[in-house]
Amino acid sequence: MLFSSIDILRADGTVAAGQFVGVKGKKIEYIGADRPGEDYGRVYDGRGKLLAPGFINSHCHVPMTLLRGYGEGLPLDRWLNERVFPFEDQLDGEAVYYGSLLGIAEMFASGITGFSEMYYFCEDIVRAVLESGISCNMSRSITAFDNTTLVGQHYYREAKELYKRYHGAAEGRLMVDMNIHAEYTNNGPVVAKLTEYAQLNGCRMQIHLSETRKEHEECIGRYGKTPAEFFLEQGLFEVPTTAAHCVHVTESDMEILREKKVTVAHCPTSNMKLGSGIAPVTAMRKKGLNVALGTDGVASNNNFDMIKEMRFAALLQNGVGGDPRLVSPAEVLHMATLAGARGQGREDTGEIAVGKMADLVVVDCASVNMIPCYDRSVNLVYSTKATDILMTLCRGTVVYEDGAYPGLDMERVRTQVVRSLDKISK
Amino acid sequence: MLFSSIDILRADGTVAAGQFVGVKGKKIEYIGADRPGEDYGRVYDGRGKLLAPGFINSHCHVPMTLLRGYGEGLPLDRWLNERVFPFEDQLDGEAVYYGSLLGIAEMFASGITGFSEMYYFCEDIVRAVLESGISCNMSRSITAFDNTTLVGQHYYREAKELYKRYHGAAEGRLMVDMNIHAEYTNNGPVVAKLTEYAQLNGCRMQIHLSETRKEHEECIGRYGKTPAEFFLEQGLFEVPTTAAHCVHVTESDMEILREKKVTVAHCPTSNMKLGSGIAPVTAMRKKGLNVALGTDGVASNNNFDMIKEMRFAALLQNGVGGDPRLVSPAEVLHMATLAGARGQGREDTGEIAVGKMADLVVVDCASVNMIPCYDRSVNLVYSTKATDILMTLCRGTVVYEDGAYPGLDMERVRTQVVRSLDKISK
Repeated sequence: MLFSSIDILRADGTVAAGQFVGVKGKKIEYIGADRPGEDYGRVYDGRGKLLAPGFINSHCHVPMTLLRGYGEGLPLDRWLNERVFPFEDQLDGEAVYYGSLLGIAEMFASGITGFSEMYYFCEDIVRAVLESGISCNMSRSITAFDNTTLVGQHYYREAKELYKRYHGAAEGRLMVDMNIHAEYTNNGPVVAKLTEYAQLNGCRMQIHLSETRKEHEECIGRYGKTPAEFFLEQGLFEVPTTAAHCVHVTESDMEILREKKVTVAHCPTSNMKLGSGIAPVTAMRKKGLNVALGTDGVASNNNFDMIKEMRFAALLQNGVGGDPRLVSPAEVLHMATLAGARGQGREDTGEIAVGKMADLVVVDCASVNMIPCYDRSVNLVYSTKATDILMTLCRGTVVYEDGAYPGLDMERVRTQVVRSLDKISK
Repeated sequence: MLFSSIDILRADGTVAAGQFVGVKGKKIEYIGADRPGEDYGRVYDGRGKLLAPGFINSHCHVPMTLLRGYGEGLPLDRWLNERVFPFEDQLDGEAVYYGSLLGIAEMFASGITGFSEMYYFCEDIVRAVLESGISCNMSRSITAFDNTTLVGQHYYREAKELYKRYHGAAEGRLMVDMNIHAEYTNNGPVVAKLTEYAQLNGCRMQIHLSETRKEHEECIGRYGKTPAEFFLEQGLFEVPTTAAHCVHVTESDMEILREKKVTVAHCPTSNMKLGSGIAPVTAMRKKGLNVALGTDGVASNNNFDMIKEMRFAALLQNGVGGDPRLVSPAEVLHMATLAGARGQGREDTGEIAVGKMADLVVVDCASVNMIPCYDRSVNLVYSTKATDILMTLCRGTVVYEDGAYPGLDMERVRTQVVRSLDKISK
């Protein structure tokens, strides 16, 4: 594919206008103001359009697409116990597979080319990832309630098997991370054991951290330590970690996260939707933490849409902080791209440069809601609508274009989602 | 037009499934589960779609579309003084006319069928309103700085002429309200005089109220009264009033607004974008105030999109209040429809019922981001994307369908917007 006369969003939020971008195989092979001599196949007329790096959804539970809007309006504990858990108890592999494909399709339509996942039925999610073309850092959610150890636990076996079987699959498109669901769903020895496994095998780690005040304070009650201090003591942060939420982290927690190079997956919509609070993103960024952006599951969002997420993140921080300069459009774009790729350990992803993966999104800049334009990154964050996302490429393959999903049989996905949901008592 | 087998959003947020809706002329003439005997012309297949009342944008400065993203990231006072005012000083009637058409097109694409406006160059905005088919409560922004009186002031003359010439035009599609820009841009005698004019002529009133802390506190410093108390004393609230923002209103201010049946035009995106604060919407609604929803100008939003605005309003109130039940999807839909119509004094608008104006929006409920669906109003508020807005009708006329604007020459609008902006030094 050759993009002709297209504007490119640079990593610093500025734009290189009227460029030619040649994609060969999975990678970007050419960028320049002149038309390349080489033949890149299909030529895409980029006039009036912006080429941006694909967005990275840094925290996600993709099969929860099946629970879009389910149990809405209940407080968090009742929502989980009365609605989400009984629903999830009835899931099977087919439901998870089709729910994942549905979620991945929605991600493609909003320009997401990679995500970090924690759930169970991992084989079924992996199947959807591999078939669809999206990149994924997969992790098997580990919840060792009741002071259990990992010995003999099926989820520990599953996590290890997942890693052995799939880490690096599809030429690295699929990576497998280790997982600790959260402090309150695990215990010290379990955390230590998983940390050891991750270190031995060079895995990364995904966790939830200080999402709610209750979780944060109960941990202090239990151990006299915040969740971040607890994980530090267990040695978890010796493993490259992405910590979702971090809504209630303290100043000294932030120092730990900075020191240990933990990536924060900020999920503002989910946090506000569940009434969890507002993460101190401005303070974390000021300290130099790597803050990325995630949607969380659709059940608490209720979309997989990084355009909505970027806009919301910026408005929330600037609005609550009372200063429109706290998080700039360029900064929130960095959170949604390079910071996410860095959190996933993907150095070949997150920006448009020769030799990088061709994970790309084409945005219409000529629609009624995108003109006039004084700054492309401002309009991209604050004015873009779903109608402006024209095309998404994952590793050089078109996965979404003008409302269609070339690699997915969406009719089958729809039919099977309905069939799966019919079997679940709600 | 006959909508067949379509689901209808009722005023209480519930849905009447599989209905036939017949539109004749400007109005809804038939609603029923059976196909009507009468011929309504074009038949629109409504299967998998939701018919909702058109949204009312309760506070807007439509020509500011020309300033989309202009001067981004500056604090409010510098943004206004260094960027917005010098830009606006160079506007002419043609720029305002085409900027208004561009803004109206964006409103159509997000299902907005009516708006409340305060600006100047009103004749040019009126021209855009009348040509486009949208409904509008127009008002000439009155700013009487420097202790001036209204006598001989061109803006007062313009406001009166506008009212005489256009109030009730296009069979009531255009209404003209009186205006007091804000307390800090006016003085007591001016407010009293405009109130008198409005009362004599039976006009409604549009004002800004307690948008920023500075404005609110400086008023107390000046008069020993809050802006709401100041306007109460001047008798302004004897006129049916819509007050935009109300971010910093006190408990007793809210009592005044309730007692005087003032409609609050809540503009959450603009308030957060400019760092003005978060309006106490939950408290106002609890007191029984009529709270409507507005985008404010595109310069501080940066869209005219009531779907984005509804989602943001609900997330913000529930998130900051720490309780996901504070503002339900049905309640925020009410704010965006009936509460807005009530604020405009339009009893024939804001809900789908026989005899009401056919201001309607058709929403795709079968897209990947709209399934599954457990509650239509939940998905409408939280999951809808711009790609789901299939059609918008203003008073029975299709003004937007599948990306096209049948009544607008968008190529001319685009060309003329560019031409107008070229003349402005930025």
